[in-house]
Formats: sequence, C-alpha cells, structure tokens
Amino acid sequence: MNDPLITLTTDFGTASPYVAAMKGVILSLNPAARLVDLSHDIPPQDVRHAAFFLAGAVRYFPAGTIHVVVVDPGVGTERAVLYVELGKQRLLVPDNGCWKVIHLRLGSIIRVTNRNYWRNEVSNTFHGRDIFAPVAAHLSLGVDPVALGEEATEWANLDGIRMTLIEDGVHGEVVFVDTFGNLITNIVTGPCVSRSIKVTIGDIAVTQGGKTYGDAAPGTLIALRSSFGLLEIAEVQGSAAKRLSAKVGTPVVVRIAPSEPEA
Amino acid sequence: MNDPLITLTTDFGTASPYVAAMKGVILSLNPAARLVDLSHDIPPQDVRHAAFFLAGAVRYFPAGTIHVVVVDPGVGTERAVLYVELGKQRLLVPDNGCWKVIHLRLGSIIRVTNRNYWRNEVSNTFHGRDIFAPVAAHLSLGVDPVALGEEATEWANLDGIRMTLIEDGVHGEVVFVDTFGNLITNIVTGPCVSRSIKVTIGDIAVTQGGKTYGDAAPGTLIALRSSFGLLEIAEVQGSAAKRLSAKVGTPVVVRIAPSEPEA
Amino acid sequence: MNDPLITLTTDFGTASPYVAAMKGVILSLNPAARLVDLSHDIPPQDVRHAAFFLAGAVRYFPAGTIHVVVVDPGVGTERAVLYVELGKQRLLVPDNGCWKVIHLRLGSIIRVTNRNYWRNEVSNTFHGRDIFAPVAAHLSLGVDPVALGEEATEWANLDGIRMTLIEDGVHGEVVFVDTFGNLITNIVTGPCVSRSIKVTIGDIAVTQGGKTYGDAAPGTLIALRSSFGLLEIAEVQGSAAKRLSAKVGTPVVVRIAPSEPEA
Repeated sequence: MNDPLITLTTDFGTASPYVAAMKGVILSLNPAARLVDLSHDIPPQDVRHAAFFLAGAVRYFPAGTIHVVVVDPGVGTERAVLYVELGKQRLLVPDNGCWKVIHLRLGSIIRVTNRNYWRNEVSNTFHGRDIFAPVAAHLSLGVDPVALGEEATEWANLDGIRMTLIEDGVHGEVVFVDTFGNLITNIVTGPCVSRSIKVTIGDIAVTQGGKTYGDAAPGTLIALRSSFGLLEIAEVQGSAAKRLSAKVGTPVVVRIAPSEPEA
Repeated sequence: MNDPLITLTTDFGTASPYVAAMKGVILSLNPAARLVDLSHDIPPQDVRHAAFFLAGAVRYFPAGTIHVVVVDPGVGTERAVLYVELGKQRLLVPDNGCWKVIHLRLGSIIRVTNRNYWRNEVSNTFHGRDIFAPVAAHLSLGVDPVALGEEATEWANLDGIRMTLIEDGVHGEVVFVDTFGNLITNIVTGPCVSRSIKVTIGDIAVTQGGKTYGDAAPGTLIALRSSFGLLEIAEVQGSAAKRLSAKVGTPVVVRIAPSEPEA
Repeated sequence: MNDPLITLTTDFGTASPYVAAMKGVILSLNPAARLVDLSHDIPPQDVRHAAFFLAGAVRYFPAGTIHVVVVDPGVGTERAVLYVELGKQRLLVPDNGCWKVIHLRLGSIIRVTNRNYWRNEVSNTFHGRDIFAPVAAHLSLGVDPVALGEEATEWANLDGIRMTLIEDGVHGEVVFVDTFGNLITNIVTGPCVSRSIKVTIGDIAVTQGGKTYGDAAPGTLIALRSSFGLLEIAEVQGSAAKRLSAKVGTPVVVRIAPSEPEA
C-alpha cells in the first residue's frame, strides 16, 4: 500500500508562510504523508474560482486521496469546516459551497467539530494550520471520519452562478479565465460544438464553432468544448480575455441557429 | 523511519531553472530525499522578508527536517554558508541573518567550508546548486554536521528591524505584507489585542481591537493578533496594504490608552 | 530501488486546474510515482524559454528520471508527441524543438502514437492530461519505450536562435532573462570572461569582465560566465533587464579586443 496522498489548494500564495506552516503541521503528525500542491494561486477569497478549479482537478486522483481546500473569506467567523466525500475523493473544505460543482456522487458530509483532532491552540485567523492541516493528517493516519463530528444536515451553496434557459437556447456566463486567456463558461456542451449554434459573448458574435485551437487562423475567435466538457471561447494563438475584455461574470448566450435550407 | 525531508526556500521564482537544478542535484545524491517547496516567491534578495517567512514556517516541521534557504544578495562574495540548529530544525543559510527571528533554542552553528561535500566545480554565481544543494543531500544521508566545517564564532545580524519602547507604548513597523494585504508588524502581542490600546499606522488611528476578521463590518480597519503572535493590521474583507498605502517599513505605534473612568 | 521520479514543466500556471489534473492522472495510474515540479511559470507558449529552462535543469537529475514538458502552442494540431532520450534523462515533449539545446548525448527518439497508453477519451485541447500524463505514468511503471510508437526519423528544430560568427568575434542574442533581470545569452564562454573581450548589448558597451556579482560596485554592468556556461550580462545588485530595457532577442556582440602593447 502506498503512503497516503494529501493535496493542497489555497489562495495563500507562497510569498507568505501560511502554506509552509500547513505542510509542517501535516508532516509532523504524519511524516509518511505525501503532499501534492494543486494550487496556491487561487485568486484571494474567490470561492467561485476555487469551485471550478476543484471541478477540473479532484476527479483525477486515486481513490482515497484527501484534498485540503482553504479558500475562505469567512475564517474566524462561525462558518463550519466540512468533511465531504465525493465519489472516492475525500475533501476538507470551508462551508462555502466551493465543492458544489464537482460532479461526483455525494457520500458523507460531516461538520468537523471534534477539537481532539485540531491543534491545541486554535488561532482566530489561521484555521488552515490549526484545523484543516491536523484533521487531514489524522484522516491520513486512518482516523474514521465519523469521529470528526456530527453528520451535516445543511450546508452553504455556491452563490452567483447564473444560467437560465431562454426560448431558443441558454444564457450563461464566463466562470473561469485560464492562464492563456481562454474563457470557460458554465454552459455544458456535447462532444462537438456544432456550427449550427450561435455563441454571443457580450455584444460579440463568435461565429466559428471549431474543435480545437489549431482549427482556424491565428486571431480567430472560436467556440469549442473545453477539456472539462464546458463551452469555451478562445482566440487562436491569442487571449480571448484580452481581445474581448471579458472576465468572470461576462454573459454568454448560446442560441440554436435556425436550420439552413438544404442545397 | 521515514525518508528524510528537505525543504526549499528561495527568491528564484520558477520561471528560471535554478530551483529545478537544485532539486536535481539533491535527488542525484540522495534519491530517497523528500523535497518540500516552502517558497520560491520570496521577493528578490529581500533577506528581511525571508526572515519573517522562516519564522512563520520552520517551527512546524518534524524534528530533523533540513531547511535550505537561498535568499542571498551576497552570492559570489566572501559571505559564508552556515549550518544552524534551531530547536530540532536544521538550516542551511547564507550568513546574512535570515534565521535570526526564528524563536527556537539555538544549537550548533557551523561555517560550511569543507569542499568535500560541495559539487566538484563551484560556480561564482550559483551556490544554491553548487554548495547548498549537495550539502543538504549529504546531511540527509547522515553526514555529521561537524564534518562540514568549523564551529562559527560570529555571524551576521539581521539589519534594519526597528522597535523602540516609548514612554507609553512601543514604536515598531510593518515587517511583512501577506497575500491578502494584511500588515504584520514586529510588535509582539498577547493572546488578545485589548481595546485599551491605541494602534496608529502612519497617521491613521486603528481604533478597533478585534479578535478576528469576522468581528467587524467589511471595510473596518482592525488590529488583531496574527496567527504568529505579532500585531497585525487588517481590513475586514479588504486589503489594509492598499487602503493605507502601507508597506514593509511603514511605522506602527502602539500606546496604552489611559484608563476610562469606570461607570 | 527508489520509486520513479517524474518531473513536470509547463506553461499552465497553477491558477488553472491543468497541472492538478495531470498530477491526478499520473498518480492514479502509478500511485508510487514521485512528482517533482520544475516549473509551471514558463511564459505561455514560449518554446524558446522552455528550451533554455530545460537546458539548465534536466542534466542534474538522477539517471532514468522522466521529464514531462507541456509548452505547446500546437496542441490539437498534428504536431507529434516525442519520447526523447538525452544522456540518462528521458523526456516526453511536444515536437517543437524544446529539447534541442540540452547538450547531452542523443539516444532514442520515438513518436508517441500507441493509444493503448493514452487516456481512453483524448480531448482536442488538453494533451497534457490525456497523452503526456498517462504515457509518463506507464513509462514509470516499466513500459518499454519502444512500445510507445515508431522510431522518429525527423523532428522540429528550435526556431529563431541566431548566432553568427563575425570577423573579430560573435554575434548572438539574449535568450533568457532570469528572475533577477540577469541576461543570459546564447554565446558560450570559457571558465573566465576575459577582460580582453568587448561585450556590446544593443548600443551599450559592457566593459567590465567580472567573475561574479560581488566583484564590482553596485550598479556596474558586468559580463560574466553564467552558471550554465553561457555569457551573461548582469547589473551588480540591480536588474540589467530594466537598466538596458533588454529582453529575449536583444542582440549581443562579443569582439576580441586588439591586444594592448605590453608594458
């Protein structure tokens, strides 16, 4: 059996010592734990970004992996820490809905309240070090999740993701801008983005329905299916985000184009 | 027994191959070493930043962990490389005082001069790869630190950390600005920041003495005890650094407020 | 025997879930693999930067290390994925020449075409997750590289690296700007940069031929041999890139100075 995997996703950056302190706490409790950095560059306190990040990452890990997520505008308030099982993945998350767009079968959800698995002294401002890290370490040592607290009966949702069906299509928005300026939306698409749909972002029509970045001339705006199954708008060899001044929240509309008369 | 841990803290960033080269050198000498990235985003050559980073990170690691620190304006000059034991932590640092605010019991300090543990060819500009990395690898293989060189009898201090007691309080400064724009000062505080103190940063009075970020309305400036035991000035759900145009070195004054007459 | 090492070099950044997904895919196929992040901060689609990064990093790793490189403007087009042996290092790279400045003896080159080692569903836009990651995992499990595809008989070169000999010297260019603003050129130098050469960058003469950053007063521009054996132009305790507004591609000329008459 391999040593247990613990992944880390935070908005701490690494110029501050917060991530380093969490790593130290985990390794002190379980020196055999194997740490995997997913990201420390989630934009500060951006729960939506974290949610779509996790949706694109968590499902690929081996069964039983423990994912620690600290993107937490509510640190120091009464918001709970949750242990959530999704498929065969195990997550420790603030109760802010950041896990709600991961499409895996929901298992147990537990409110993490048993202070026996926390650090002795819990600060008001750094639950990552004082709660998340030690609880993850104890889980990796084999602690049964039911020992962490009571089963949760309610939890926060992820706010502000808008998608509405309209008569001839769907109205959604950009939910994620990747490193290359590609715009990922919250609109699910089939394996091919058909040329018979019309995609509009803001006031701009994206007419080209391509399969991949290489399908069109440099500078062309294309709509394609992202590697996560969501509609994506990209500029070939460019940044759609810059070109369109688009960002998270920019509205995107997809309409079914009326059929052309056959030739 | 677990494989040995070696942490890395540098100002190299990761767009350059310097960190990667160090990792390769360590793993070639000791393939069983387990590397833990603490940070490669220390601001370039900012020894003070490195010092407070280390103070917030090193203490949490398992006994015997080897911490390699390369933040080194003096590379290529005559500044020494030091092996320093602090509590049960072992550090390899440039002799620039970067380890001087870690509050752990000082053990051995050795000047690393024995070239048997260096790379055969030592460049003038990349001691991280040619001295720090191989020495760390040899330590992780069980080399006795006394073999690395002579006991050190003097070493550099950390310059420019100013804190002076004044009649009714203390005069300090911002020493660290974290990812969220929170301002960490060099003023040690007790477990609670009392409402009976007055905190001034630059010309601005920070009247609210809160316990945590969630204690006050968004936009409020609060003074609180940071998770590292130092006085911290934060804006609730905002960036105190931006709000106050504050940065490392901005003066902070704490005064004991005269007691209010009891009601 | 130690668990196999797989290094990762990408231009994905870590705010997006792409690197995380690759790590998950690798660890799901081979939970014993040890992942080493080299960089996720290669400038987007900058193959030249990746090439010089790899030249400064790959050679230091233990024999048999698998290096996964995804800096790939051509994703989704017909460009091949190559398995390349260089010295005792093993690379998985897009066929864009990013491995061509690594000075190690070339061994096998194989076009990676056998879909048995890919993910079942291969997206058009994310070969890192769907081809590179699973192939690396299978290699780490002991799959013989010849099973990956046919031997390659041609491959892309790295475009646009210009170096020409001129009558009294060599004409090259800046190929890499490091974190500190030091300018690394494509001009190979001996162990010492002699004072009898004249280095010109753009219109500026760099008169000082130093050995290291500490050899001259702060602010001095010096030409020295970089830790990778290439001519480097640096400003002592400053940024030569800023000072000279230099960037990748800025021309650099080295001329042999006429001998001074001996005294």
